[in-house]
Amino acid sequence: MTDSGFQEADMTEAFQWQRRVGFGDCDPAGIAYTGTLSNLALEALDVFWEEVLDGKGWYRMNTEYGFGMPFVHMEMDFKAPVIPGTPLVFSVAPEAVGRSSVRLRLSAEQGGVLRFTASFVSVFVTTPGMEKIPVPEIVRAALARRFGPDAGI
Amino acid sequence: MTDSGFQEADMTEAFQWQRRVGFGDCDPAGIAYTGTLSNLALEALDVFWEEVLDGKGWYRMNTEYGFGMPFVHMEMDFKAPVIPGTPLVFSVAPEAVGRSSVRLRLSAEQGGVLRFTASFVSVFVTTPGMEKIPVPEIVRAALARRFGPDAGI
Amino acid sequence: MTDSGFQEADMTEAFQWQRRVGFGDCDPAGIAYTGTLSNLALEALDVFWEEVLDGKGWYRMNTEYGFGMPFVHMEMDFKAPVIPGTPLVFSVAPEAVGRSSVRLRLSAEQGGVLRFTASFVSVFVTTPGMEKIPVPEIVRAALARRFGPDAGI
Amino acid sequence: MTDSGFQEADMTEAFQWQRRVGFGDCDPAGIAYTGTLSNLALEALDVFWEEVLDGKGWYRMNTEYGFGMPFVHMEMDFKAPVIPGTPLVFSVAPEAVGRSSVRLRLSAEQGGVLRFTASFVSVFVTTPGMEKIPVPEIVRAALARRFGPDAGI
Repeated sequence: MTDSGFQEADMTEAFQWQRRVGFGDCDPAGIAYTGTLSNLALEALDVFWEEVLDGKGWYRMNTEYGFGMPFVHMEMDFKAPVIPGTPLVFSVAPEAVGRSSVRLRLSAEQGGVLRFTASFVSVFVTTPGMEKIPVPEIVRAALARRFGPDAGI
Repeated sequence: MTDSGFQEADMTEAFQWQRRVGFGDCDPAGIAYTGTLSNLALEALDVFWEEVLDGKGWYRMNTEYGFGMPFVHMEMDFKAPVIPGTPLVFSVAPEAVGRSSVRLRLSAEQGGVLRFTASFVSVFVTTPGMEKIPVPEIVRAALARRFGPDAGI
Repeated sequence: MTDSGFQEADMTEAFQWQRRVGFGDCDPAGIAYTGTLSNLALEALDVFWEEVLDGKGWYRMNTEYGFGMPFVHMEMDFKAPVIPGTPLVFSVAPEAVGRSSVRLRLSAEQGGVLRFTASFVSVFVTTPGMEKIPVPEIVRAALARRFGPDAGI
Repeated sequence: MTDSGFQEADMTEAFQWQRRVGFGDCDPAGIAYTGTLSNLALEALDVFWEEVLDGKGWYRMNTEYGFGMPFVHMEMDFKAPVIPGTPLVFSVAPEAVGRSSVRLRLSAEQGGVLRFTASFVSVFVTTPGMEKIPVPEIVRAALARRFGPDAGI
């Protein structure tokens, strides 16, 4: 796998989610605002975890399960403007799982055209307290179950 | 029709839209932030117009059709906290259509429990220029077609 | 005091706060987005409480002091578009304090021109638990100290 | 200059801006939400340009000057949680100016503690039309005037 994108194999396996883009998402340049795009990407990741972990997304992790996964790194590469009129389709897949961290890759397209790619690294911590912990076993098992033992996990 | 809610008849006819509530929508009190709720309500209205006007939502109105509909009034009554874990279901219907203005009513529920109601008044204006204009005939006709000639139109 | 605005006396006493309006606050119509305006108004209220209560704004209320003040009602009347290039100046003052609730009025101007007015009603509750409680004595005393015993308190 | 931070010299020259962090900026984990941090960083960049270009920030660029500077890349490294109670202080400085692009580096601290660093690359384009153009001469000259001819420009 190169650093710059999903492998073909990853793309077919990736988690997919789509979202409408509307007037309130856009700025005076008439395209989706960069700050909004980072928020939409984060929302896609929240949905990803909710799906992979059977409903235990960020909210329940933090409020019921005693752990959170704050970001230590995010990066986004913008390829083409995101505009209203056609849904924004996200693909999310794990790229690497370390001892305490997980790296996800994300791509977003509209009308079959790639709009941006992104990469996010989170570490697992206790809540409250924010002490770093190993990747919880339920997380590791769920990723392996969904993406296979070969998916960088 | 009273000022405080939908009539039974309106409720069955109302436009419906639903949206996930996630971690990023919530504040340190663990419930959806008030400012987020007003944004979600506005997004529901944007979807309402896009549906009623066959795709001519706020974005295309402003950028292609030469008119916009800025708000002159909004009010929201919060009945119960909005939380993650179950979709937020919006109902939107016109309450009154004047010469240059339209008033929409909105309600939002989760799990069958009413969370908030809202009322919004917009006036129609040219873009650019922001000169007040009568409700465009395509808007009036579309509302009558969707909600019937009796729906305060 | 009429329902539609501050009395002269209130205006001179009102808490003032100002904020820059930028590109990311604006929508494709080139003016500040309505959803952003409600967020800016809420931020002004948060600053108001932080100032009146010597640093005990919404965050510390919820996380340290065991109470919160969720909104039960908000309304905004938009008089003129908010645009970048000159600060948005907020005035906030209490309008009424009840047994468990407080109503604040807010106005916002740019370049000496009134842009919108708003009214917000919050009730006081325990956190966690969300049980309604009387207006905390420290809140009542702080409002009286800042706005005088006549300010609807 | 290394890729991972400002040089000592850059730090003293960097543009500084600070902003309050409030309740609405935070999530159920009790810290500023990652999506909010990216928005605050973007706001700091908008202020940076407004200052460097004597008021010609993103809004006036797009609406009056016929050019914009959409992002092609952004990355953020989070070092410590951002919390309410003390201002978030941004430092922004140019790292490299190419033919059509500019790379800015940003760091943000609270109470003297580094919270995150970030790097942003924008390209200059016409508005409307989004045709790539060389870095406008007024931009190049303003950066040289503010940061000196040696600042990667």
